[in-house]
Amino acid sequence: MNLSALSLLLTPSLASPLLAAEPPALPSWQDSAPKQAITAFVAKVTTPDSPDFVPPAHRIAVFDNDGTLWSEQPMYFQAFFAFDRVKALAPQHPEWKDMEPFASILKGDLKSALAGGEHALLELVIASHANTTTDEFEQAVSSWIASARHPQSGRPFTEMVYQPMLELLAFLRHHQFKTFIVSGGGIEFMRPWAERVYGIPPEQVIGSSIRTRYELRDGKPTLLRLPEINFIDDKAGKPVGIHQHIGRRPLMAFGNSDGDFEMLSWTTSGQGPRFGLLVHHDDPTREFAYDRSSSIGRLDKALDAAPANHWSVVSMKNDWLSIHPPKAD
Amino acid sequence: MNLSALSLLLTPSLASPLLAAEPPALPSWQDSAPKQAITAFVAKVTTPDSPDFVPPAHRIAVFDNDGTLWSEQPMYFQAFFAFDRVKALAPQHPEWKDMEPFASILKGDLKSALAGGEHALLELVIASHANTTTDEFEQAVSSWIASARHPQSGRPFTEMVYQPMLELLAFLRHHQFKTFIVSGGGIEFMRPWAERVYGIPPEQVIGSSIRTRYELRDGKPTLLRLPEINFIDDKAGKPVGIHQHIGRRPLMAFGNSDGDFEMLSWTTSGQGPRFGLLVHHDDPTREFAYDRSSSIGRLDKALDAAPANHWSVVSMKNDWLSIHPPKAD
Repeated sequence: MNLSALSLLLTPSLASPLLAAEPPALPSWQDSAPKQAITAFVAKVTTPDSPDFVPPAHRIAVFDNDGTLWSEQPMYFQAFFAFDRVKALAPQHPEWKDMEPFASILKGDLKSALAGGEHALLELVIASHANTTTDEFEQAVSSWIASARHPQSGRPFTEMVYQPMLELLAFLRHHQFKTFIVSGGGIEFMRPWAERVYGIPPEQVIGSSIRTRYELRDGKPTLLRLPEINFIDDKAGKPVGIHQHIGRRPLMAFGNSDGDFEMLSWTTSGQGPRFGLLVHHDDPTREFAYDRSSSIGRLDKALDAAPANHWSVVSMKNDWLSIHPPKAD
Repeated sequence: MNLSALSLLLTPSLASPLLAAEPPALPSWQDSAPKQAITAFVAKVTTPDSPDFVPPAHRIAVFDNDGTLWSEQPMYFQAFFAFDRVKALAPQHPEWKDMEPFASILKGDLKSALAGGEHALLELVIASHANTTTDEFEQAVSSWIASARHPQSGRPFTEMVYQPMLELLAFLRHHQFKTFIVSGGGIEFMRPWAERVYGIPPEQVIGSSIRTRYELRDGKPTLLRLPEINFIDDKAGKPVGIHQHIGRRPLMAFGNSDGDFEMLSWTTSGQGPRFGLLVHHDDPTREFAYDRSSSIGRLDKALDAAPANHWSVVSMKNDWLSIHPPKAD
């Protein structure tokens, strides 16, 4: 090795740890159209002399959570948390024995509990998610997520994430993308574990929220969670949430349902290169199969709109070699 | 050079550009108590074998903007923007000729315009900041900030920033802190220039906001700015805004007025090492001198609370060697 070769090794761009490691190769993705579209897009926007080059600060990728990063059947995992919270809080609420949807939950009759529709669900979220400090709520989520199990697989919910999407998150970050979650789920329900599970820090998690109020408790500054909705980060709320938190239109957006339609539309209607992708749940053997007629994660309007918008559609059955990561032990 | 020396050069930690450059040395800070407190704190939390070591993901530093990162006299700079917007929009609003506070603004009588207090100010912000798309508003701010001048110094407002604080932002980022703005000012007023001027990207700017609504205009996805307040990021709103956007209690907080009292309290009452600092405007020669009786940037309660909370207080007169950066040309 001569000196000029050595100096080449020491120039910042070559010495950067970001570029030193081998890029993750999306090993759980079949070498089919969606993977080819992703890698071609990333190559295009990250190659310095490409006409489509995008500087790192503008490389924003947004991901829906339920049904996109982890499973959402037989119901949103946060609903299991809400039910377990109601059971845990029941001794302090004797009135719940005769009040829906609480009475049905306490009897273990989830179907009746959900029969009240959106209003009952809202009451449930307020009752199970409010009237604590933010620190207490974080602790409640952390304890629950460490011990709760998916009713069918018996695995921790954090192992019901999608292995191909974990690889995609790492692949994009390797290429200096900032990865964000933009979910209809509760922002404070996701933050306690998103960094460990997805590598996404709390400040890059966007979700639905309830109001908080700053107050002193025994002279100590506290944030109290109020029984009032602050923001619903779903459908047309997603572009609003993205603008509020990020303030910059994403380059790439990933979703799986009609709740992501506006997020993908907002993202891919921006100027210059943009990318949209939908995960289609069509694998009843390894996961679940549902789309147009599902009450959870309905995919109808967005599926119809995909071709005209050049959105990729992942067939979980055909495009993913594995679904969930291997069991931890 | 032998092979083992070469391999040492190539290990990620040594090759990292973060550690390769010499740390900025806060050259515009007098070597007095505030600088010593800052550098001692940063050394303590970033030294791997220190009992107070904090991993990079938790190194969050929050900065007020008006009066902390740039000047705020003779009035908040955003008010100059609002006045100029009213003048620019006046042809579309003939009714403003006879309606306060607009009539006074159009006559150039700013004192009378502000006489209506908070209500008049709110009306002014709504009228001058809403009813555009987010893209149009960003364009309006960018044009204004490029041409407007401070009425006393004649300099662009972006040159009315504080040189010692620019150095501090760079110093903290060098030590793997993430720097955020947490301002009572408008989030969309700061984002268009904060990255260029402070090195702070839009997703790390938190501020007051008005509501936006997603809608299609000629089939194109658009975010419309509505004439309704969404969030006031001041006083007890600052910890709320921090929690909403960051979701993690900061390690360091920097402010200059009673509007920052709750932000500093929230930050420094967290467990483990925390740091708070107030900028005290006591330099009538090089900048402005005001505190307990000022209507803009009043510093009274927070100044009294500083000693008991171990908050540093910067005397701009004694602790800063320079105030604003040198003129660009």
